[in-house]
Amino acid sequence: MSGEVLITPESVDNLYNRLKKEAEAAGYHLNNDVEFAKSLVKGLLVNEQRYGYWSCPCRLASGKKEEDLDIICPCDYRDADLNDYGACYCGLYVSQEVLDGKKTIGSIPERRPPPGERERAKLASVSTGISGISLPVWRCVVCGYLCAREEPPEVCPICRAKKDRFQRFL
Amino acid sequence: MSGEVLITPESVDNLYNRLKKEAEAAGYHLNNDVEFAKSLVKGLLVNEQRYGYWSCPCRLASGKKEEDLDIICPCDYRDADLNDYGACYCGLYVSQEVLDGKKTIGSIPERRPPPGERERAKLASVSTGISGISLPVWRCVVCGYLCAREEPPEVCPICRAKKDRFQRFL
Amino acid sequence: MSGEVLITPESVDNLYNRLKKEAEAAGYHLNNDVEFAKSLVKGLLVNEQRYGYWSCPCRLASGKKEEDLDIICPCDYRDADLNDYGACYCGLYVSQEVLDGKKTIGSIPERRPPPGERERAKLASVSTGISGISLPVWRCVVCGYLCAREEPPEVCPICRAKKDRFQRFL
Repeated sequence: MSGEVLITPESVDNLYNRLKKEAEAAGYHLNNDVEFAKSLVKGLLVNEQRYGYWSCPCRLASGKKEEDLDIICPCDYRDADLNDYGACYCGLYVSQEVLDGKKTIGSIPERRPPPGERERAKLASVSTGISGISLPVWRCVVCGYLCAREEPPEVCPICRAKKDRFQRFL
Repeated sequence: MSGEVLITPESVDNLYNRLKKEAEAAGYHLNNDVEFAKSLVKGLLVNEQRYGYWSCPCRLASGKKEEDLDIICPCDYRDADLNDYGACYCGLYVSQEVLDGKKTIGSIPERRPPPGERERAKLASVSTGISGISLPVWRCVVCGYLCAREEPPEVCPICRAKKDRFQRFL
Repeated sequence: MSGEVLITPESVDNLYNRLKKEAEAAGYHLNNDVEFAKSLVKGLLVNEQRYGYWSCPCRLASGKKEEDLDIICPCDYRDADLNDYGACYCGLYVSQEVLDGKKTIGSIPERRPPPGERERAKLASVSTGISGISLPVWRCVVCGYLCAREEPPEVCPICRAKKDRFQRFL
């Protein structure tokens, strides 16, 4: 294998448009620096050809899907980083505050645990299994949407109510 | 502050189109009396300039966001009013039955508790905290979507199955 | 009543386009054999005129809505059939794998219980009521979406993460 990967501008534009549409439909936003966002989308397509999946363009993939699952875009860490820093680790996804210019993206520390801890975290979650609720469940007071995550989403993906309209349910 | 607020017809049209699109995507519907709906959308934009948020155009806001959270559009009472009366308090959102002419909108009583009770309701919900499930959880039998609300939604926001395809889950 | 039902090509196209859009928005897909899909959509419209609801075009409806609820399209069995066979019983909905040509649709056994068992299943579910969780609850690790179903969906309807990004939550 030569490692040579050809990505056409058309395929980048197509995926960029699809991701943008899907993001907006769910209350997420791509970075409005379109050229920058497209360079990351190109990275996704390069990784798709290399590994067979959209491994994060800003992280080193192992090439074994099982080990890379947490960094397949959108990664497991996106929403927490959007919440804390206004952008995901790469800057492909940004928060409404960043879009509105009310917040600036700074440097985002790597939230992904190092390999050893990753293994332990996975084992812990498997052994805990379904015996307990590991994360709070949030409820949108407007439409009743439920989700389990550290903090509520920026907006309800169903009815667009904002974060402050969520209450803890479980 | 002069109280003078300028809202352009373009900004009304833009927000109307956005709300209509977002409503339909989630199984909700704006009133099909477009001029009436736009007058309410204009009210939202007026309130955004006055208070900084989309306070309900048919209710008197306090101007303190914390006290007005429940009447930021879509308000906490919309879905119950859609269910019982076929429209939200303002008439901005209507049910499918109303759209289809099978139901007529009558007068909709104010469901929002008076200020004293509002405080008590909030305290009760805080003190109860996460110790108990205060609302039934409904499950769409087609796609498994879960939501916590008095009654199931008119249609499943995920798969469009109708209300009678929901079963109580918790 | 003559049983004569007139369905215009325009009404078929309209419903086909609507179903296709709604399907894609939630991570489902109509069969890409468009003429075949439209023949099924026509069947839905015929049944709507006959019975008043979109009874499955490949099954015999009783004409009593209460007894036919589970086979109103999308039927209660669609997602399990998509998961196991890559298509719903009719073939109106197909999985991504089928779309991508990685899987071929074979014959799909009827998953709907026979009338007697159907009654018993319904009674059991009513008597169990809310006393226990009958189905696993899955959580999307990316966005926290929760759903209760035998297996996770093909993709998260909110954030498009794939099935292998779901973990059992309850």
